[in-house]
Amino acid sequence: MKITSLNNELIKETANLHQRQYRDEQSLFLLEGRNCVEEAISSGLKIERVFVLDGEKEFSGTENILTNEAVLRKISTTETPPKVVAVANQVNYKWNNNYNKIILLEGIKDAGNLGTIIRTSAAFGVDAVILYGDTVDLYNPKCVRSSVGNLWKIPVFSMKSKDELIKISKNYSIIGTLPNSDNTVMLNDFKKKSKILIMFGSEASGLSAELKNIADENITIEMSDNVESLNLSISVGVVLYSLMTMSY
Amino acid sequence: MKITSLNNELIKETANLHQRQYRDEQSLFLLEGRNCVEEAISSGLKIERVFVLDGEKEFSGTENILTNEAVLRKISTTETPPKVVAVANQVNYKWNNNYNKIILLEGIKDAGNLGTIIRTSAAFGVDAVILYGDTVDLYNPKCVRSSVGNLWKIPVFSMKSKDELIKISKNYSIIGTLPNSDNTVMLNDFKKKSKILIMFGSEASGLSAELKNIADENITIEMSDNVESLNLSISVGVVLYSLMTMSY
Repeated sequence: MKITSLNNELIKETANLHQRQYRDEQSLFLLEGRNCVEEAISSGLKIERVFVLDGEKEFSGTENILTNEAVLRKISTTETPPKVVAVANQVNYKWNNNYNKIILLEGIKDAGNLGTIIRTSAAFGVDAVILYGDTVDLYNPKCVRSSVGNLWKIPVFSMKSKDELIKISKNYSIIGTLPNSDNTVMLNDFKKKSKILIMFGSEASGLSAELKNIADENITIEMSDNVESLNLSISVGVVLYSLMTMSY
Repeated sequence: MKITSLNNELIKETANLHQRQYRDEQSLFLLEGRNCVEEAISSGLKIERVFVLDGEKEFSGTENILTNEAVLRKISTTETPPKVVAVANQVNYKWNNNYNKIILLEGIKDAGNLGTIIRTSAAFGVDAVILYGDTVDLYNPKCVRSSVGNLWKIPVFSMKSKDELIKISKNYSIIGTLPNSDNTVMLNDFKKKSKILIMFGSEASGLSAELKNIADENITIEMSDNVESLNLSISVGVVLYSLMTMSY
């Protein structure tokens, strides 16, 4: 199949996936660029269709739609349009009680941070990620991009209520991450737990009182006094690396 | 003083600072937002002038120019214009042989990453940062923003040639950071050095052969096989935290 008209219905529907509302309704999202699409296919992600610039190498095992630059510009979200854009199905994960290492991100708003955190979590052996409260959409194109082909390598769950969280976390040590304060253990002194759920607050306001209240223990990253805080994704990276390599 | 015309020469000159060429020529840069300006003033950064939305609190000890939203939109670089924009002087640091912990960033192109790395470096006790080769401008507004008021807390040097680098680094252990390969030490097994210069390659292409050749030792961050790499600023964060807290 070949589509070159900007007014084609399929092109309009695909461009609609720039918006969260349409992604939610149709449970679809965009993959931009050949590397990203290849990584998704090799991970077994279910692809609906791939738009390929006419003349570029096509993909096997999926519907290829040949198209032109104008269409790719319309359906993509980057300044320079990629030569390949795919529409993929969002993944519905089922909760599994065998997860050992879980991170929770409360109210995360920055899509770039979220993608970087998913990538880092996959690298450092996290079993599941919980998006808690009102957060950016996991399938936001900027998040997909900054995950660099790792978005679908780790189960992600959205939770809105504390009750739901308490229910799934009852066999876990619940750890809060806080800036330096009383009642925290420095990260380097933290002792390993077999099943752990680590909570990170939003960059703007940190952990809410609601979540602080359910923490069994709090940790703080050692750092210089003359810097107020770390970037959220850096905090997550440092905590996860430390947990992965700590000697017990 | 009050300026409300978009055609005022000072407004045009200030808006020119969005471009690297003008920032380089005039050795000036922009601070956007009250928090950023306050942090800069309290750090002793030399401020040329501050544009303040008429009616907002003025700053003491510096020239305040009262203005309107249209002007602030023109001279700022964020989607929502801030209520305060200042013009500050770039800092010229003088090399100091007493630095113990130095990081080198080769060919870094992402301004957000650079700002985050400066912030992280200040938090984890880095003494100096070297920008090596062709890199993004330290004073890029996005870099200033993502440093969150830490840009001027740590000396940053630009170097273009290997000779210059070899000259300043002769009393240092030069450490390369590489993806998993032969000839590297895993980060957690790395032994402390008194004077250290750690080199990070660009996210796109890693360390160049030129810099790999001058490394005394290479380190690799432990991570899962099914993820190709980490975001550059995450790698820097993990290595720096690890060096800061390692037991020796």
